[in-house]
Amino acid sequence: MGLIDGNAIAQQVLTEVKAEVAKLAPTIPHVAFVRVGEDPASVSYVTKKQKTADEVGMRASLKVFPENVSLAELYAHLDALNADPDVHGILIQAPLPKHLPETEVFNRVSPAKDVDGFGTQSIGRLVQELPGAFAACTPRGVIELLRRSGVQTAGKHAVVVGRSLIVGKPAALLLIAKGCDCTVTIAHSRTADLAAITRQADILIAAIGKPHFIKADMVKPGAVVIDVGINRVADATKKTGYRIVGDVDFDAVAPLAAAITPVPGGVGPMTVAMLMRNTLDACLRIRNHG
Amino acid sequence: MGLIDGNAIAQQVLTEVKAEVAKLAPTIPHVAFVRVGEDPASVSYVTKKQKTADEVGMRASLKVFPENVSLAELYAHLDALNADPDVHGILIQAPLPKHLPETEVFNRVSPAKDVDGFGTQSIGRLVQELPGAFAACTPRGVIELLRRSGVQTAGKHAVVVGRSLIVGKPAALLLIAKGCDCTVTIAHSRTADLAAITRQADILIAAIGKPHFIKADMVKPGAVVIDVGINRVADATKKTGYRIVGDVDFDAVAPLAAAITPVPGGVGPMTVAMLMRNTLDACLRIRNHG
Repeated sequence: MGLIDGNAIAQQVLTEVKAEVAKLAPTIPHVAFVRVGEDPASVSYVTKKQKTADEVGMRASLKVFPENVSLAELYAHLDALNADPDVHGILIQAPLPKHLPETEVFNRVSPAKDVDGFGTQSIGRLVQELPGAFAACTPRGVIELLRRSGVQTAGKHAVVVGRSLIVGKPAALLLIAKGCDCTVTIAHSRTADLAAITRQADILIAAIGKPHFIKADMVKPGAVVIDVGINRVADATKKTGYRIVGDVDFDAVAPLAAAITPVPGGVGPMTVAMLMRNTLDACLRIRNHG
Repeated sequence: MGLIDGNAIAQQVLTEVKAEVAKLAPTIPHVAFVRVGEDPASVSYVTKKQKTADEVGMRASLKVFPENVSLAELYAHLDALNADPDVHGILIQAPLPKHLPETEVFNRVSPAKDVDGFGTQSIGRLVQELPGAFAACTPRGVIELLRRSGVQTAGKHAVVVGRSLIVGKPAALLLIAKGCDCTVTIAHSRTADLAAITRQADILIAAIGKPHFIKADMVKPGAVVIDVGINRVADATKKTGYRIVGDVDFDAVAPLAAAITPVPGGVGPMTVAMLMRNTLDACLRIRNHG
């Protein structure tokens, strides 16, 4: 079994981004974060992303709204960010409180600044395989992990477990696209005999959001396993009272796998790194095309 | 084996559309066709669509450009159609001549009038499962055939052979969406051991564009087989010198299948019927929302 070291690969990406950012001076790529409420996981993700932006020489700003913010107030802020020529990327940290229509809010971000890749225009361009589509950071990170780990994709059978808008579907679309050329199966909670499907995977992408859901009998020996899950499970031995585990039962599956990502330290750091890559790309495009 | 009669099901749809169109008077839904060049298949498709529009009480107009039309000239016409309040749907007949960037041309159509569903906005909304997305007519027709034939989809394994922007990908996106809830595999020309994949299909969608490509040994007994192929093969016994065959070897596969669409008379008429449905929907939306 080979461990796919997401921290190390993310660091490669960040080193490349940092070098490109330095060349842009005096322009400084600027990613504007928007957070609604005080969900601890959201606070922690945004803090991590801001810190990484600092490290690569980007500017990161943050606007925090209270849990009960109105849609009008949120849109007024997004519209101002869309119009601000010094803002290159906008990221609204998901999940949003239930009273806000998440997809509509994502769609309010200007396509040119949609570094999270959740807007209609970004997703449509991904399906159309047009150059310059912002792919969502997590699925883009999954592809980059495969690529930089030397995993062959053409003609391989990739099984994506989970059909979410922010991971499962875009991951499937990237894997089926020309260049990747996988055969792709998308399975989900309604799939009959899931294990029979996942056992076919040469490349298994777990994005279900259920701790340790993928067991050894669901994995073909020799498969490459990418674990997108970030689940908090209670753990009295931790100061925080919880620990983070993936969707894959790592200890059981790792001995079978040709390669596997750990959680934490797999896809997570790649998500952050691809956000920096997308923000740099947004800045370059806005600079070149107005 | 049950024959899925695309002509009869399309007629149901058209009867419903006609009744709704009659209620809209004095408004007349208007679909504007744009054809470039004289490709015989394109001429025949557009003529068929115009004729059907007439039958359901819609207005159909047609602008034909010569093969060597410039992009600027084509865009000027599309912009005029986009701006014309009396035009509700716009359809650019594919394929376009090689010198024209097909996806960019599709994207020039206003999302509100994109009844062919090929634009970025339409496809993005399909992925986002937002209400009111125009799904491309052929994949929408496939889903409608399944639905009106009483084929259960939830938890079934659908295999789509072909990853085109106009059939394979949108069909897969519709099948995976909530409501359909299939497990979906997308296979294509780069797929290793295609027969092993297609034999798993409870619902097999053939959209490869190769005559009689799907043979009996590629189909699981009891599968529902939907043949999207429309291929011309030489036939000296025909006045035209050719006949139309599907992507499925019908005579060999039909005895195995629980249900199967013929070619012609399967998906083809549904494509035309769904275009009328989309145009009516476009007209209703433009009328209701300006």
